[in-house]
Amino acid sequence: MKTILVIGIGTGSPAHMTIAAIDALNRADVLFVPDKGATKADLADVRRAIIDRFVTGAPHLVGYAVPRRDAANADYGQGVEDWHNALARIFADLIAEVPEDGTGAFLVWGDPGLYDSTLRILERVEAPFRIEVIPGITAIQALTAAHGIALNRIGEPVLITPARQLGPIETDTIVMLDGRLAFRDADPDLDIFWGAYLGTPDQLLISGRLGDVADQIVTTRAEARARHGWIMDTYLLRKRQ
Amino acid sequence: MKTILVIGIGTGSPAHMTIAAIDALNRADVLFVPDKGATKADLADVRRAIIDRFVTGAPHLVGYAVPRRDAANADYGQGVEDWHNALARIFADLIAEVPEDGTGAFLVWGDPGLYDSTLRILERVEAPFRIEVIPGITAIQALTAAHGIALNRIGEPVLITPARQLGPIETDTIVMLDGRLAFRDADPDLDIFWGAYLGTPDQLLISGRLGDVADQIVTTRAEARARHGWIMDTYLLRKRQ
Ligand SMILES: C[S@@+](CC[C@H](N)C(=O)[O-])C[C@H]1O[C@@H](n2cnc3c(N)ncnc32)[C@H](O)[C@@H]1O
Ligand SMILES: C[S@@+](CC[C@H](N)C(=O)[O-])C[C@H]1O[C@@H](n2cnc3c(N)ncnc32)[C@H](O)[C@@H]1O
Repeated sequence: MKTILVIGIGTGSPAHMTIAAIDALNRADVLFVPDKGATKADLADVRRAIIDRFVTGAPHLVGYAVPRRDAANADYGQGVEDWHNALARIFADLIAEVPEDGTGAFLVWGDPGLYDSTLRILERVEAPFRIEVIPGITAIQALTAAHGIALNRIGEPVLITPARQLGPIETDTIVMLDGRLAFRDADPDLDIFWGAYLGTPDQLLISGRLGDVADQIVTTRAEARARHGWIMDTYLLRKRQ
Repeated sequence: MKTILVIGIGTGSPAHMTIAAIDALNRADVLFVPDKGATKADLADVRRAIIDRFVTGAPHLVGYAVPRRDAANADYGQGVEDWHNALARIFADLIAEVPEDGTGAFLVWGDPGLYDSTLRILERVEAPFRIEVIPGITAIQALTAAHGIALNRIGEPVLITPARQLGPIETDTIVMLDGRLAFRDADPDLDIFWGAYLGTPDQLLISGRLGDVADQIVTTRAEARARHGWIMDTYLLRKRQ
């Protein structure tokens, strides 16, 4: 049986790589890498740097084009469904290239369990193979470590949410996948801990009372985004103590 | 100025160590390690194995006794407060042993941001030093990776909560710090993904419809706990699709 490794590579710093992830990279006969252009250039660079630094011997790379999700589809669920099916057909072709009883590997940004579709797409591929998941440092851990704070208050829960599901803040909340600056609609008396390009040399951090720093985040974010051509950011919102 | 490193070491497997964590271990002039007996023996063994495997050169270890939290204190908040103050006095003494402009390091289970008090205790130490946090793989990532599942559903939020705050399940929920098997009170039609000793050779995994597997988890947990003398477990609860 073939083995497919789904390797968490951290969120920007090659130093986020775990020993298990490095071992996994070197166990794979084939590494699947999205073609340049398919992902933001800097992300492709991080992936490449990780392969160069940690793979001993000549890696066997197989590139693939990532189709775009039809964001124009008014039905969000159906848009994702179609996109996953298209990717499942591509993944089936990639897995066909793995030698019998051999090992292929996907390199996943952050941790494969957190807002990533690789595992779900692999579930749709009908060929028989076993999956092994190697955990990775998430953007959430990169955020709290960079700010030197704990994610939770003592004994309290924490909610992790995509921005499109952000409601009134009752619980300490991590917001991810925020393309529309959802924090602007939140209570200005909350504290925010914001970070962008976490783990990379371009890391940006801003924290304080939301009402005091929201404009600074909006400006900083717009400038950085224009400079890089893309941005990835996340933040923690919580009531002041 | 002194530097205090707070290093996430993962939750049981030395292979969870990141390159950044290994670098940090080797940057430290002094490694602070809780005395044997203070923590569960197997946890002390993992910490020892990590130091043996990854520290090049002879590590300078300084042990310390961890006072017990007064669990009999009816006021949970006050019990934690007193305990943190006692630990802050111990940490102050430890930091006094770091050479001027030198570096000391605490090795923290999992990630320093997730239900760990090291950062909060360091905030109470009055001596001047700078803190650097190195993220680590959490029990949550170890759980989802071991089950080969994503933490979240597509586009949906996830709640992380200590068992004592567990209410009715409206959102997919990770439960930690559960000494009283809180899942027994949850809707039997939920799915549960349970794991204990994650990342270690003793790892245990059970998943399924809660009503079908709850008894099996209770029995497995009791047996394992009797065998080891302790248990650490966590689980994901979610509505069936
Ligand atoms: C599709 S999700 C993938 C998350 C990833 N699997 C992880 O474990 O962090 C992408 C979102 O993660 C967050 N993110 C990922 N990398 C980041 C980084 N380096 N800095 C800030 N946010 C990041 C952003 O909120 C972004 O919208
Ligand atoms: C005090 S918290 C520390 C969490 C840690 N900082 C982390 O990042 O995972 C301890 C709780 O974490 C969970 N935990 C930690 N290590 C675990 C392991 N190896 N297996 C299962 N659960 C674990 C359990 O829920 C336990 O009650």
